[in-house]
Amino acid sequence: MDKTPSFSLRIPEGDGVAHKVCDHCGFVAYENPKIVVGSVVRHEGRVLLCRRAIEPRRGFWTIPAGYMELNETPEEGARREAREEAGADLAIERLLAVYSVPRISQVQLIFRAALADPRIEAGVESLEVRLFEWHEIPWNDLAFPSVHWALNHDREAEDGAPPVPFGNPAGDVGDRMPDGRMLATDEF
Amino acid sequence: MDKTPSFSLRIPEGDGVAHKVCDHCGFVAYENPKIVVGSVVRHEGRVLLCRRAIEPRRGFWTIPAGYMELNETPEEGARREAREEAGADLAIERLLAVYSVPRISQVQLIFRAALADPRIEAGVESLEVRLFEWHEIPWNDLAFPSVHWALNHDREAEDGAPPVPFGNPAGDVGDRMPDGRMLATDEF
Repeated sequence: MDKTPSFSLRIPEGDGVAHKVCDHCGFVAYENPKIVVGSVVRHEGRVLLCRRAIEPRRGFWTIPAGYMELNETPEEGARREAREEAGADLAIERLLAVYSVPRISQVQLIFRAALADPRIEAGVESLEVRLFEWHEIPWNDLAFPSVHWALNHDREAEDGAPPVPFGNPAGDVGDRMPDGRMLATDEF
Repeated sequence: MDKTPSFSLRIPEGDGVAHKVCDHCGFVAYENPKIVVGSVVRHEGRVLLCRRAIEPRRGFWTIPAGYMELNETPEEGARREAREEAGADLAIERLLAVYSVPRISQVQLIFRAALADPRIEAGVESLEVRLFEWHEIPWNDLAFPSVHWALNHDREAEDGAPPVPFGNPAGDVGDRMPDGRMLATDEF
């Protein structure tokens, strides 16, 4: 290797939109929206949350979720993330929600799940993992708007909402926490 | 530019899995699953199909669908694809199905939609566009397994299936057309 990475925004031949093109060899680094897969996990009425050991939002609480990998299904990805982040073995019930955060070009597929085995354990990306009663959930210390959405939508599903997947709250594109604070980070 | 693109599969520092690394500068070309957004589009009981002008599956019929772009929502992407491929202006009703084809690392979000305006016109990626009565659908000339799935799931929705999104037919990962022929191409 005799160079360091260096890209410029240019319109590749035959394309209509600017993309990152390598200054050395012309390689076009196409970027696509990313898929996050995750779960609201229940066990005996309590819900599983993980305190993040990594940025963004280190120290804040999240549902187990992360980027889908190549050659897996969304359900496999959601189970893998729960295993990695919370040492948890999931029984997935159904698709709870499809959210999109266009600012960061993310689509999130969130499932409802139960623990197939009661054992949980913090993985390397988590400071701690815990099962919360609804009234114990640390609402002011949740990592992302979509964690709020997913917990509340799961509660609506518990209360008998039809099994239609939820989407973003009306008009909400995920730029703010529910208390109004702007949040400009990536998610998960 | 004094080089041509050249990548080797290597494990980048701090990573656990092999990725494509540039031989010149060390840039890591991470690849992620891709999101396809599309629609089963109805107009007066007929369904909109486009005959593909591009590979893969040139000459075969498809629903309007394609890769989601950066900074758009899935619904915006589905409307954009229908505009580009069929000159069609859609009114999206709801999410019909979430399919995954792990062989090609695709997640497909398929909506139910109606034409907001009856005018349609083949775009540059289509040889022709047409509204089909159910009995006229060219089943043996559909482009991909998921086009079969989506048309049949939309029919089930018409017939009163609950508004839960469909997934892949049980055990089906999209490697074969419904008549059993293998299909190893990319989709959309």
